[in-house]
Amino acid sequence: MIQQTIAVLGPGSWGTALSQVLNDNGHTVRIWGNNEQQMQEINATHTNQRYFKDVVLDEKITAYSDLSQALDGVDAILFVVPTKVTRMVAKQVAQVLDHNVHVLHASKGLEQGTHERISTVLSEEIPEELRGEIVVVSGPSHAEETIVRDITLISAASNDVKEAKYAQEVFSNDYFRLYTNTDVIGVETAGALKNIIAVGAGALHGLGFGDNAKAAIITRGLTEITRLGVAMGAKPLTYIGLSGVGDLIVTGTSIHSRNWRAGDALGRGEKLADIEKNMGMVIEGVSTAKVAYELSQQLNIDMPITEIIYRVLYEGLDAREGILEIMRRETRAENEF
Amino acid sequence: MIQQTIAVLGPGSWGTALSQVLNDNGHTVRIWGNNEQQMQEINATHTNQRYFKDVVLDEKITAYSDLSQALDGVDAILFVVPTKVTRMVAKQVAQVLDHNVHVLHASKGLEQGTHERISTVLSEEIPEELRGEIVVVSGPSHAEETIVRDITLISAASNDVKEAKYAQEVFSNDYFRLYTNTDVIGVETAGALKNIIAVGAGALHGLGFGDNAKAAIITRGLTEITRLGVAMGAKPLTYIGLSGVGDLIVTGTSIHSRNWRAGDALGRGEKLADIEKNMGMVIEGVSTAKVAYELSQQLNIDMPITEIIYRVLYEGLDAREGILEIMRRETRAENEF
Repeated sequence: MIQQTIAVLGPGSWGTALSQVLNDNGHTVRIWGNNEQQMQEINATHTNQRYFKDVVLDEKITAYSDLSQALDGVDAILFVVPTKVTRMVAKQVAQVLDHNVHVLHASKGLEQGTHERISTVLSEEIPEELRGEIVVVSGPSHAEETIVRDITLISAASNDVKEAKYAQEVFSNDYFRLYTNTDVIGVETAGALKNIIAVGAGALHGLGFGDNAKAAIITRGLTEITRLGVAMGAKPLTYIGLSGVGDLIVTGTSIHSRNWRAGDALGRGEKLADIEKNMGMVIEGVSTAKVAYELSQQLNIDMPITEIIYRVLYEGLDAREGILEIMRRETRAENEF
Repeated sequence: MIQQTIAVLGPGSWGTALSQVLNDNGHTVRIWGNNEQQMQEINATHTNQRYFKDVVLDEKITAYSDLSQALDGVDAILFVVPTKVTRMVAKQVAQVLDHNVHVLHASKGLEQGTHERISTVLSEEIPEELRGEIVVVSGPSHAEETIVRDITLISAASNDVKEAKYAQEVFSNDYFRLYTNTDVIGVETAGALKNIIAVGAGALHGLGFGDNAKAAIITRGLTEITRLGVAMGAKPLTYIGLSGVGDLIVTGTSIHSRNWRAGDALGRGEKLADIEKNMGMVIEGVSTAKVAYELSQQLNIDMPITEIIYRVLYEGLDAREGILEIMRRETRAENEF
């Protein structure tokens, strides 16, 4: 493939790791962020110390705090900003972008208030004449492993299969592989909602439960997020793929996941405000739990685990009390979507 | 429910744990095994030291080495013997059983040679007039956790929903819950085939790969066992449930799983014969890999991960070489069943 120029919006851990993948593949990568000092650090020392203490980036990767400079003549824009600022950044992009680009995103959340998926937010804010169909890339991917070029496999989904294949082509190499998918709703909701279940699995660990119980909450959690996703228009089988089960395994069983760690701390009795302060990073599962709970009420979807996690996070329910409440529910048949 | 008398055939770790669950629920439990010394130990000291060093069973649980005594007047028979002796034991049951019973099983394998599921073997050997439709109980369940009454959730599947509900009723209590399912083929194949993927995930660990790679092989493995299961008549969504994803999470990410440990040892360069000798327990994933590989050839199903594991186990392929071979395969679309 010809060499592409790609702007990566969001210099967090995943944005940085994806920038290195794209640079490894011979593309010209421009990282954009609004923290001028961080951008200067990337340009001067080729490091991003806040996220990776020991990593030196290729010096060909450049950083910009000016969005119009970052977007000048690019072939593609990759959004990797936190969910809550996606709309704001997309509005800024729409103001300065002067040509048609590929638009990709790698965020895992749902917008507070509107309950919208990221691709909906992006397509509302960036006019159609400036972009192809949005692509979401999502799957089991600790940035800490991708940055050291350990094997990572994820999904690329778009309503336009040509755009999904574009993402597959620019990203894939020996250690990083993309599988195409056309179920954008499924991939986006799986990536977002799985963070709620990771909080729950972490909480079980913090409370001292074993592997059987954790596997059970992950599986029953997967069933209920599938139920919600299907009500939103997703295909159920997407949840069995990389963005569903795959990401849930990484997020729901690993101490590297900030959502899991937040749940673990909750289970050990810490308060949400303290956990968020200590973490110093965005815990998407916390805000997604609120959006998912509201959606489940609105669409009348039974989501007992999400409801309990919502009540633990936002209404002060005791975590152990909540888990036991789930266990007391009547036994039922599996796979009632 | 009225109190039942239940014969548990197979005094291994899972048979012992399930016996305790049934005894906790007020049923009369008879464990049967062909090792007379072990049966005497259960009756005399109420222990089963080979599997549980620190557990004392309720003295109401009795053990038999005589099958006709064990089956005398029972309401139900639960098979928890290794796959390779299931047919032999079922033949013996058919010879001595003189009344109609519920037949359940909790084995996770496929028969060598015939490639048959356990419920097929049981229904071939035990005449219809002596039994209801077979029930399979399967899901994420380390015996070590169930025996200490940690929370465990599993599936109960039967072609006759009344029989699945019977299993749900006799087994369910505060810490042990069953979800009914009617997809017997799905639950049985998921439980059996997931052991192959656990071997693969263990091998990745032994080779030093990270969580992203392990989640990827588990997910892509799930896709291919689903593909085989569907070709055998299963419903794909069963694989998203407790007997599929749930069991795969427990088996594929936990050092407690003997299949995972066997893979880990393979990844670290040990030979299969030594691993089997050191383990001293049945590694179902090893024989299931052979059955699944043969089935995939026969049914013309693409199972790249199973094929590699088969070649590592039976044809001396180097494990790292095999993993890299999987990674070199062409990228493709997800969920091609």
